[in-house]
Amino acid sequence: MSASEFQLINKFFAKQNQNRDDVIIGIGDDCAILRPKPNELLAVSIDTSVEGVHFPVNTPAQCIGHKTLAVSLSDMAAMGADPQWVTLAITLPTADESWIANYCQGFFNLANRYNVQLVGGDLSKGNLTITTQLHGSIPQEDILKRSGANIGDLIYVTGTIGAAGLGLLIKQQSINIPSELKEETPNYIHKLECPEPRIEVGLALRGIATAVIDVSDGLAADLGHILKASKVGAQINLENLPVSKGFNLLKDQLNQWQHALTAGDDYELCFTAPVSHQEKIAAIAIKTHTPINQIGIITESTSLQCVDNGELISLELKGFEHF
Amino acid sequence: MSASEFQLINKFFAKQNQNRDDVIIGIGDDCAILRPKPNELLAVSIDTSVEGVHFPVNTPAQCIGHKTLAVSLSDMAAMGADPQWVTLAITLPTADESWIANYCQGFFNLANRYNVQLVGGDLSKGNLTITTQLHGSIPQEDILKRSGANIGDLIYVTGTIGAAGLGLLIKQQSINIPSELKEETPNYIHKLECPEPRIEVGLALRGIATAVIDVSDGLAADLGHILKASKVGAQINLENLPVSKGFNLLKDQLNQWQHALTAGDDYELCFTAPVSHQEKIAAIAIKTHTPINQIGIITESTSLQCVDNGELISLELKGFEHF
Repeated sequence: MSASEFQLINKFFAKQNQNRDDVIIGIGDDCAILRPKPNELLAVSIDTSVEGVHFPVNTPAQCIGHKTLAVSLSDMAAMGADPQWVTLAITLPTADESWIANYCQGFFNLANRYNVQLVGGDLSKGNLTITTQLHGSIPQEDILKRSGANIGDLIYVTGTIGAAGLGLLIKQQSINIPSELKEETPNYIHKLECPEPRIEVGLALRGIATAVIDVSDGLAADLGHILKASKVGAQINLENLPVSKGFNLLKDQLNQWQHALTAGDDYELCFTAPVSHQEKIAAIAIKTHTPINQIGIITESTSLQCVDNGELISLELKGFEHF
Repeated sequence: MSASEFQLINKFFAKQNQNRDDVIIGIGDDCAILRPKPNELLAVSIDTSVEGVHFPVNTPAQCIGHKTLAVSLSDMAAMGADPQWVTLAITLPTADESWIANYCQGFFNLANRYNVQLVGGDLSKGNLTITTQLHGSIPQEDILKRSGANIGDLIYVTGTIGAAGLGLLIKQQSINIPSELKEETPNYIHKLECPEPRIEVGLALRGIATAVIDVSDGLAADLGHILKASKVGAQINLENLPVSKGFNLLKDQLNQWQHALTAGDDYELCFTAPVSHQEKIAAIAIKTHTPINQIGIITESTSLQCVDNGELISLELKGFEHF
């Protein structure tokens, strides 16, 4: 507790092994000074994570470091932007150096994988609350908005849906784990604590997807944002949802499809694209080593309809509510 | 408490009357998309304010709105940058709509004065904690760093020093107010709650100042950052410090010069410039309607020396400690 804010910054946060040419002034002045790519636009996204709200109280610091950056990277992916620089505002109750060291390890490991440099921040005393702002670059013609979905477009989702939500239930011990799933439970907790942002997929979807969002509040809620912004509807085939083995084993306890459609924190990409791009999307899945599944189609109605084995079913679908 | 995050964003935060041409996508997608000025650099600064740490618990929401933006604008001023866009991450305990409306009024009033547009944000549940990130533009040759002070440069400060700190003491009722000061006490509280960022002075100092910082942690600590970054020392003439009438009346209670040199939250600019620019600086003071006082000189030593009526005195000087 004896270290000052400035000592902590110099000891931990200024120690990233990443020196981008486009960082003119990094940590240590009143502002960071950065050189945007000529002829490209700047994408920015700010996200806050609060202990006990966005991550459970006993989450390892290294995972918190990873995840607080991953959620911002996921927003970049959903826009098709190429991430460059990050700023970090941390409020923490005590200057616990071992916690900070572990946090930085998780944060910098992920940042270095995408050549993202920490260029500034703020360190304050208070309940554990972390805000990251990420900055990226994107040519104007390549922006992946939420509002471009057209009737007849196919709807896709990367990875698996509901796995992070299952991790949360396992962590909260609010579910009975069948013996055949016991060995795999750490994988689900890992999906919750260390989500993988889909940066490569986002970049590959430039010029191909018509609308993209990242799935943070649940598939139904986030696909709903695409539908609202694009003024269209959708039909989802539930049997095509890429659910996990755990979901299939726990289907009854999980209230069936509600879990897969409303569990948050997966940070997968949900996107739409014209039928003519099916082969290109298959190629992107192979090139980026990312499962991409078609789950439905954009329709003329303005609602989200769910089909289970050919029959339209009615579901109570609510995403994560912040208040 | 029934409104969702998205309803609150649409009702309050998306309602700013400011539409900059360089905002391609504002609030409502995964990222904001912005067009940087061609041939200029991007300045970014992130700041967190925690209730009970950075502002007292009973501070009016409108003042919190003003101040959380003002501290970021002050960082832009200290860099000589022209502010453009802001993002805002608010964590608050309940979705109190009247609090949010008042907060937005203070925030947007100040933002509109400088044509700053709110382009994105995040709203979460938790203790009242607010993070703002401001973005501005600056030509590379005009950057005002902390590290350019040269031996023989004169040291200046804008406005008055210690007035916000006096406001805090008045608000905390930890000081006896003499009768001749009673009428003016609201002015000191206003200095604390609604600091004025020195944007015009910062822009005018481009090409003139050799080092600039904004005074947030106390003059001694912040000037100390300039000295450390520039590898020089300084001599300050205490009788030249621009203190308030209240300071002079309360000198004895305030532990004399310690208060003026260590009280934070003034958000004035402290800067250095060569002797040859004295007339230009006098002209900037007139043009920007801002008092600018010369308070000392940069020296070869690497310490901060204080002179009172020609005699070197020793002071215990510590700025605001975050932990």
